Amino acid sequence: MSVLITGIGELTTNSEVTGDALVIDGAEIAWVGNVGDAPAADERVDVEGRAVLPGWVDSHTHLVFAGDRTAEFGARMAGKPYTAGGIAVTVNATRAATDEELAAVVRKHIAEALRQGTTFIETKTGYGLNVADEVRSARIAAEEADEVTFLGAHLVPPGEDADTYVDLVRGEMLDAVAPLVRWADVFCEKGAFDYDQSKAVLQAAAAKGLGLRVHGNQLGEGPGVRLAVELGAASVDHCTYLSAADIDALASSDTVATLLPACDLSTRQSLPPARALLDAGATVALASNCNPGSSYTSSMAFCVTTAVLQMRMSVEEAVWAATAGGAQALRRTDVGVIRPGARADLHVLDAPSITHLAYRPGVPLTHSVWRQGERTN
Amino acid sequence: MSVLITGIGELTTNSEVTGDALVIDGAEIAWVGNVGDAPAADERVDVEGRAVLPGWVDSHTHLVFAGDRTAEFGARMAGKPYTAGGIAVTVNATRAATDEELAAVVRKHIAEALRQGTTFIETKTGYGLNVADEVRSARIAAEEADEVTFLGAHLVPPGEDADTYVDLVRGEMLDAVAPLVRWADVFCEKGAFDYDQSKAVLQAAAAKGLGLRVHGNQLGEGPGVRLAVELGAASVDHCTYLSAADIDALASSDTVATLLPACDLSTRQSLPPARALLDAGATVALASNCNPGSSYTSSMAFCVTTAVLQMRMSVEEAVWAATAGGAQALRRTDVGVIRPGARADLHVLDAPSITHLAYRPGVPLTHSVWRQGERTN
Ligand SMILES: [Zn+2]
Ligand SMILES: [Zn+2]
Repeated sequence: MSVLITGIGELTTNSEVTGDALVIDGAEIAWVGNVGDAPAADERVDVEGRAVLPGWVDSHTHLVFAGDRTAEFGARMAGKPYTAGGIAVTVNATRAATDEELAAVVRKHIAEALRQGTTFIETKTGYGLNVADEVRSARIAAEEADEVTFLGAHLVPPGEDADTYVDLVRGEMLDAVAPLVRWADVFCEKGAFDYDQSKAVLQAAAAKGLGLRVHGNQLGEGPGVRLAVELGAASVDHCTYLSAADIDALASSDTVATLLPACDLSTRQSLPPARALLDAGATVALASNCNPGSSYTSSMAFCVTTAVLQMRMSVEEAVWAATAGGAQALRRTDVGVIRPGARADLHVLDAPSITHLAYRPGVPLTHSVWRQGERTN
Repeated sequence: MSVLITGIGELTTNSEVTGDALVIDGAEIAWVGNVGDAPAADERVDVEGRAVLPGWVDSHTHLVFAGDRTAEFGARMAGKPYTAGGIAVTVNATRAATDEELAAVVRKHIAEALRQGTTFIETKTGYGLNVADEVRSARIAAEEADEVTFLGAHLVPPGEDADTYVDLVRGEMLDAVAPLVRWADVFCEKGAFDYDQSKAVLQAAAAKGLGLRVHGNQLGEGPGVRLAVELGAASVDHCTYLSAADIDALASSDTVATLLPACDLSTRQSLPPARALLDAGATVALASNCNPGSSYTSSMAFCVTTAVLQMRMSVEEAVWAATAGGAQALRRTDVGVIRPGARADLHVLDAPSITHLAYRPGVPLTHSVWRQGERTN
C-alpha cells in the first residue's frame, strides 16, 4: 500500500531532500520531491498547504509508574521546595501495581503523546529499584516503547546502603535486565549517585554491551556531564547547570546534550543554556522527561515552544532538536528525518509552517500523524 | 431544555456554592449542589470524574486584523529586536481587507478559542486608525465578540502628527465609534501615546459613557498604571514593569491588573510581578492578548500554565484570574463564575482537577465546552 501526500505547504526533512510531496510505501518513506515528478501511488492525500515535519522523537521519558502525585505538585506550586524524595512515593505505588496496570499507564501516555505528534519514544525503568520490579518494568517498557533504558540507579531505595545498592544494580540487577534493554542510565546528582558510583554502574553496563546515558547537572553543576563525555555516553540529559568546561566537553564530543525544559519549569529551576551549547557546537536534543514527579507532560510542542521563546533557540534549531536531535541521542538514523528509506513517521500541523509552533504557544497544532506508514488520527 | 451534569470530580465555582452536580436551564445555570439533591432535568450528562470550571474569560484580544506576520516573528526569534512599528504592517493589511475577510478572521479565532475552553471574549479595534476603518472594525467586532473596546489610540499612523491624531481619535473617531462599543482603551507607552495624550483620549471616552481600559507598562515602567488608577479604569493591561508605587496604587484601587504572559514570552520580555501584585492585594486577571504581532495565541491554558510555573501564582489563583478575574476586568458578574443565575459557560477538563492545567504543560486538556447552555464540542 503506497500513499502520495501532496499539498505540503512547508516540508521539514532534516535531510538534503526537498519538495512539496512524498510517497509512503508500507512503513517507510519511498520518495520525496515535487508533485510534478511524483511516482504513481495507490492513494493520494492532500494536506492543503499544511506544514509537514518528522514525528517528534521523545528520547527521555519515565512511563513505567503508578500512583498519583498531583497533590505534591500542587503543594510545590504553592511554595514548598522540590526534593528527590518524592520519587519514593512512585516507587511504592509502582511495586504495588499489577503488570497490567503498569502496561496500561505506559500505553495511555504513549497514545497521548502520539496524538500530539510523538511517533518514536524512549522510556525507562527506575521506579522498581529491586531486581524483580526492575525486570518487569523493563519487560513492560520493551513491549510498549520504541527504546528502553535501564535506570536501576535512579535513587538509593530509602533505608538501603548506597554502595550495597550500587553493587546490586551493577551485578544481579543488571544481569537480569540487560537482555531486555538497549540502554543504561544513572542519576548522577547530589542526593542520588556520585561520580564513582555512577561510573561503576555505567562501566558494568557497557561491559554488557549496553549503550550509555546519564541524568546530570539537573539541580546544580556536578560531574554528570564530565562522566558522560568520558565514557562516550550517547547523551547526558537535563544539563540545566553547566560550567564552561562542561560546554566545551560536550562541544568536542559525540555526546548529545538533551535538554528537558518542561522539567526545569515544572520544578521552577532555571532553563538550560541552550544558546551557549549551540554556539559552542554541541549537539542539542529536546525531550519531555514525562514522569509524574518533575515533568508530567507528553507535549514535545511545549518543549519546542519553550526552547524558542525562552532559551533563544531558533524555530529551526528547536524542531531539529525535538526530532533529529532525539534520534541522535538514541543513535537512530531511521527516525527524526524525512528521506527515502526512513521510517514513515510524519507530523502534519494545522499551520502553514513550523514557525507557528512558537508563534502560537499553547494552541494545539497537531492536524494528523502518521507512524510507520499508518495514519493514526 | 434543562441538563443535569453529574460525576464532577472537582468543581471550581469561584463562588460560595459547592457540589458535584449542576443543572443548566436554557442559557443559565439553574442549580448547583450534590447529586442526591438534584432537581429533575430533561437530560443527564455524566462527566465521569472530570474537573469542571467556568469557561475562560479572555478579557484582552485584538482579533480584527488581516495580514500575516509569521516571518516577522521568526526573525525576532532569530535575534532581531521587536519594535512597535510592526503594527503598521497589520494596519495596512486590515485597511485593504474586505468586511467579510475581517469577520472571518474574528470568527476563526473565536472558534479556535472556544475549542480550548474560552466562552467569553473581548476584542478591540486598533488596526484601522482612521474613522472609516475604526468604525467598521468596531461593527465587525460587535457582531462576533462578547465585549468590544475602541482602541483608535493604538499607535499614531506613520507619517501623521501625534497631537493631530489624538484630536481625531477623541473627536470625530470617538463620536462615530462610541455607539458600537462599551469600552475605550489607549496604548500608553513610549513610542505610542504619552500620559497627557492618553488622558485626553480616555477623558473624552468617559464623557461619552464608555468604560476605560489602558495598555500600560509593557516595555518599561511608565505612567500607564498611574493614569488607569487615576481615571478609575476597569483594567490596566500588561503590567510587565511596575514600580512599588504602581503596585500600591493597584492594590488600593478597583482597577484590575490584567497580565498577558504569552505576550511577554513572545516578545522575550520579563514576566510580570504577579506574586507582588497578589501579595499587595491587587486584583489580577490573565488574558491572551491574542494578536498577530506580539502574542499570537488563543490559549488561556498556556497563560494559566505560565502563571503557575513561572509567575509564582498558585493553580487556584491562576484559574481564578483567567475566569473571574477576566470577568472583573470587564465588569461582568454573569460570567467567570458558576452559580445559579450565571451564564451556563462550562469548561470540562480531561483531568480530575484544575491542578493538571499546570501539572501537564502543553497537553491539550479541554474535554468539552458549554457556552450559554449549549455544548459546543
Ligand atoms: Zn529523567
Ligand atoms: Zn493589547
